[in-house]
Amino acid sequence: MKFSFKNDYSEGCHPNILQALLSTNFEQQAGYGEDDYSLEAKKLIKEKIKSPDSEVFLVSGGTQANLIVISAILRPYQCVISATPGHILNNETGAIEATGHKVLSIETADGKLRPEDIVPVLENHSNIPHQVMPKLVYISNSTELGTVYLAKELEELSNFCREKGLYLFMDGARLGHGLTSEISDLTLEKVAELTDVFYLGGTKNGALIGEAIVINNEDLQQDFAFNIKQKGALLAKGRLLGIQFMELMRDDLYFDLAKHANIQAMKIKNAMKERGVQFLADTYTNQIFPIISNELIKILSENFEFFVWKKIDEKSSAIRLITSWNTGDEPVQRFIEIIGREL
Amino acid sequence: MKFSFKNDYSEGCHPNILQALLSTNFEQQAGYGEDDYSLEAKKLIKEKIKSPDSEVFLVSGGTQANLIVISAILRPYQCVISATPGHILNNETGAIEATGHKVLSIETADGKLRPEDIVPVLENHSNIPHQVMPKLVYISNSTELGTVYLAKELEELSNFCREKGLYLFMDGARLGHGLTSEISDLTLEKVAELTDVFYLGGTKNGALIGEAIVINNEDLQQDFAFNIKQKGALLAKGRLLGIQFMELMRDDLYFDLAKHANIQAMKIKNAMKERGVQFLADTYTNQIFPIISNELIKILSENFEFFVWKKIDEKSSAIRLITSWNTGDEPVQRFIEIIGREL
Amino acid sequence: MKFSFKNDYSEGCHPNILQALLSTNFEQQAGYGEDDYSLEAKKLIKEKIKSPDSEVFLVSGGTQANLIVISAILRPYQCVISATPGHILNNETGAIEATGHKVLSIETADGKLRPEDIVPVLENHSNIPHQVMPKLVYISNSTELGTVYLAKELEELSNFCREKGLYLFMDGARLGHGLTSEISDLTLEKVAELTDVFYLGGTKNGALIGEAIVINNEDLQQDFAFNIKQKGALLAKGRLLGIQFMELMRDDLYFDLAKHANIQAMKIKNAMKERGVQFLADTYTNQIFPIISNELIKILSENFEFFVWKKIDEKSSAIRLITSWNTGDEPVQRFIEIIGREL
Amino acid sequence: MKFSFKNDYSEGCHPNILQALLSTNFEQQAGYGEDDYSLEAKKLIKEKIKSPDSEVFLVSGGTQANLIVISAILRPYQCVISATPGHILNNETGAIEATGHKVLSIETADGKLRPEDIVPVLENHSNIPHQVMPKLVYISNSTELGTVYLAKELEELSNFCREKGLYLFMDGARLGHGLTSEISDLTLEKVAELTDVFYLGGTKNGALIGEAIVINNEDLQQDFAFNIKQKGALLAKGRLLGIQFMELMRDDLYFDLAKHANIQAMKIKNAMKERGVQFLADTYTNQIFPIISNELIKILSENFEFFVWKKIDEKSSAIRLITSWNTGDEPVQRFIEIIGREL
Repeated sequence: MKFSFKNDYSEGCHPNILQALLSTNFEQQAGYGEDDYSLEAKKLIKEKIKSPDSEVFLVSGGTQANLIVISAILRPYQCVISATPGHILNNETGAIEATGHKVLSIETADGKLRPEDIVPVLENHSNIPHQVMPKLVYISNSTELGTVYLAKELEELSNFCREKGLYLFMDGARLGHGLTSEISDLTLEKVAELTDVFYLGGTKNGALIGEAIVINNEDLQQDFAFNIKQKGALLAKGRLLGIQFMELMRDDLYFDLAKHANIQAMKIKNAMKERGVQFLADTYTNQIFPIISNELIKILSENFEFFVWKKIDEKSSAIRLITSWNTGDEPVQRFIEIIGREL
Repeated sequence: MKFSFKNDYSEGCHPNILQALLSTNFEQQAGYGEDDYSLEAKKLIKEKIKSPDSEVFLVSGGTQANLIVISAILRPYQCVISATPGHILNNETGAIEATGHKVLSIETADGKLRPEDIVPVLENHSNIPHQVMPKLVYISNSTELGTVYLAKELEELSNFCREKGLYLFMDGARLGHGLTSEISDLTLEKVAELTDVFYLGGTKNGALIGEAIVINNEDLQQDFAFNIKQKGALLAKGRLLGIQFMELMRDDLYFDLAKHANIQAMKIKNAMKERGVQFLADTYTNQIFPIISNELIKILSENFEFFVWKKIDEKSSAIRLITSWNTGDEPVQRFIEIIGREL
Repeated sequence: MKFSFKNDYSEGCHPNILQALLSTNFEQQAGYGEDDYSLEAKKLIKEKIKSPDSEVFLVSGGTQANLIVISAILRPYQCVISATPGHILNNETGAIEATGHKVLSIETADGKLRPEDIVPVLENHSNIPHQVMPKLVYISNSTELGTVYLAKELEELSNFCREKGLYLFMDGARLGHGLTSEISDLTLEKVAELTDVFYLGGTKNGALIGEAIVINNEDLQQDFAFNIKQKGALLAKGRLLGIQFMELMRDDLYFDLAKHANIQAMKIKNAMKERGVQFLADTYTNQIFPIISNELIKILSENFEFFVWKKIDEKSSAIRLITSWNTGDEPVQRFIEIIGREL
Repeated sequence: MKFSFKNDYSEGCHPNILQALLSTNFEQQAGYGEDDYSLEAKKLIKEKIKSPDSEVFLVSGGTQANLIVISAILRPYQCVISATPGHILNNETGAIEATGHKVLSIETADGKLRPEDIVPVLENHSNIPHQVMPKLVYISNSTELGTVYLAKELEELSNFCREKGLYLFMDGARLGHGLTSEISDLTLEKVAELTDVFYLGGTKNGALIGEAIVINNEDLQQDFAFNIKQKGALLAKGRLLGIQFMELMRDDLYFDLAKHANIQAMKIKNAMKERGVQFLADTYTNQIFPIISNELIKILSENFEFFVWKKIDEKSSAIRLITSWNTGDEPVQRFIEIIGREL
């Protein structure tokens, strides 16, 4: 079996989670998220973000989190603004539109949004009432390209949104990776302060399933649970989500796991960089996009699984390598050895 | 801690499932339901239903299964027919309507639908195009009242639906309990033969989460997976669902668990019946609705948790008791003893 | 050609409207409701209701008005309460559900809703967040059965709704008929004061098309125009709607037309009543539901068109007769003569 | 009052229509499109397109036609492909998304779509089931930029769509102008042959309201009327639409009106061209986009109303001039005179 660098959800979950599932299995607990573990997980999250008035809701996956948050917040005629690689734009089978809302796409170099990217969109949507009303800015951190928001960037975007009456929503499917990136100066606390809503992704960072939606804007908290139930996301055995986030939040497991994934990716990145390899983007999280020759792709493919991401020219393509909380040193070493040998 | 008869999702999952999660945890597997376990689970289900051309899709919960199936099948102007206690009608926060479809409600004595219940609904919807078009009959087995469909009843309903061009969809959140009821002569194979779509509920029968949607009508299979993704129900780590159904389907664990729950409920029912207790409905699955005095409710409440379901008169109410795959003999005995002592 | 008592939209429009269309036809006017006539019509309506802060929006038809108002007001998990004969429940092809909202049905004797009808619905929807949240009470005046709300009834309902946090929306497809009924003590001004939203129906009272939505609750006014455009209801030549309501509102044409229709119906009603005919409901607007023998139905059918509404027994049925702003004395006299001859 | 070249819906309707409304006003007719005039209009349209098996449905406006057709045809996970200027993309307040469907945007030079524009979109949507499925190609003729499809272009596009299993839908809000353009070699008959659905726009070509949806693909005809009612587009007095299309289709009034509008626009275009004016696009219908100096814009604005469409540089902008069925020679002459004097 070849080792896979295809994604960060190839393995099960961190052993602590399985252990907790085992040790609590026969306890009778309340259903629908009212169990002790869900309550404890929410408490831990609110402590970590130092925002006691935020509300936390646990759901199963990222597409689910995105569609519930967006459809709960927007009025029928309001729309979302997203950078072009935004997960909601191209990888969720039109989940947002299926709830009735348009997603406007903004082309940016690095998958991040800045106020100056949004200004022309607002200007081009002034023909009231013939056009949708932009109302929510959707960003991902780390982004779908592996880039991250610096504190100053998020502050500027947040200020801009508040000034323009736009909600700011951060997709945190890989928030752990974003925040523990070696170049990140952003903290979880700061994220809670600067966004209206964000979520902590569990699925791609050591959980079996689970994203923790955090609603910081109190106006958006009311009745939110109804939306979760209506979209089929309220698990009868909510303990499954509660136990996972309780374990991930205990000590700093969540961040330790993400950091590990980042470090493994950086080892490969640095090894390739030293040998002169170019990258599609200069990323510092668990996703890297090296541009290599078709021959090298062929050789690597004999030992590893990964996606060929983008054809660059007749002779070379960018590949995508993703490491996870569980990527050991062995496959990383082996990968680096082949690089060393071939380049 | 009082023992709870409130529902069948108070505990975790059958130990075999946790064991399988543990033993497979570090294997790298494909995402989004393409893992080996999901494939194996689907194979086992198709073997059990003896319907190799059916298609199986694994999702997280009942509301999710209901809204995905119904919205995938119906055209915008078509609607659902359900008996009044139908879960989709009153317990899913308008999940079906949120996908655009009306649910027509038919009052029946036992929560089951028969052709004669449906005929007048069809007759009253003949003012084309001013009314919704009834197109899908939604039934639950066991029903929300704990009653079950006999083979002959399902056959008649199925024939009627085919004749009238209606789809027949069985909510199987408690299908195990329905089929293993002591009075049931229906088999899983027969269910597959007589319905267009049904699902095998895992959440209420020993899984942590999970319902296995089975599409028997080949016209309805095409492109179904798109709907699962769009509604946020496609788990990145689909293995979580696959492993659970693989374990539940192995041997007859799924049916053994349901049968156990039914037996525990019947013990209580029979003990109460012997002492002259009346029931809201004559049920033979894991839900019973005894009518008892307010005093007895008070005494029982000191030892057990359960729902007071319906006020009967000033002195008495029906309570709802639900047993699960994990309800042991001790609480059942203790409950029966109190009954014996008090009545 | 037989004279038709089938409905109140069999003829074109009041001649004043055609005259105004002719005399203004070649003027260039702004599009999308910004024309002088629409502005004038809105001004006249606000004067008549003595509510200068209300906002008026003109749309084409009743189903359109209903779906736009309801989908604009409600959050995704909120639902509507309607009496069983409510037009939105059974005569609009699921238009409300198609926008995502459930409509709860309450059986009442006369098609009107009273606080005591609504109380149990609220009580039965307290299982948060598993059930839809009732939020909007939909009533029609006159109702689909031809009955009307008295001032005291509407006051009580309005007070109840405000106390319970429910919006009150009046479908006024036949509001003219309701207010000019000989038994009505309600005024247009009072309607504006007691409802959050209502509309003045033009289509069934002398216009070619058109309903004037009046939003009294200022919280509901914001951005409303977006919803009209999004649902395809914003006419490029909004002048067509403006001119019609300008003419209907000038002097009291709107009420004169409705009163005429009511009077013609009452003539028939009284003639039948004198001869001992029973009615399905005791109505005082332009819809009457006399119960007559099958033989008489046959005889009348030779001269008139009307709907046989409801079978009463083997020998008799209720028929529905509707008069309009344009129903002349001749057919009414002829109908009464036949009644006189046959009964 | 300045003469307006802002749009083609500034005036009322062709006098023949008003005359017909007058002469038929007091006839009692069936409601909901079953009146004699609607039947006659549909018959005339089917004759003109020489496609007896097509089905015709009359609705009020373009946004309404677009949202009904698209939501009726597509399954929830399917999406639309449109050129960037497509009316549904940017001028209908997200009406299509509000019915649940994404609209993919393709940048093209002239607002027209060709197979080579669509191929990469299909290629980029092959990650099943994570992406929406492109299923319907939406084009406008004339386009929103005033350009037209030639017969060969439409044939190629139609063949491509059929080969790829895509539906082809033509927005014909300005179909008359497209077909009567001096450079068009396309016929109405050909349009019916090459598209699955199209509509004949009345609102912008001499009617008060009204678009005639023509469904050529028989698979798409079934139950279509339900969608019209559900979206609030079924007029009780359908005669209003029937009479208008009956008059427009009689002889060739519809085409005569469009041709007149085109000719008036071409007079202005040619006069400007002779004086060296450049145009944003080389159009041959009733919309022209001359690029002129800010000074000239100022001078023209003293006499005429029109939109300044796009800033070209500091000194000049493109303006949009639209002529209509009713644009007389006087304002055109006057406009040309000013041009002659100033350039």
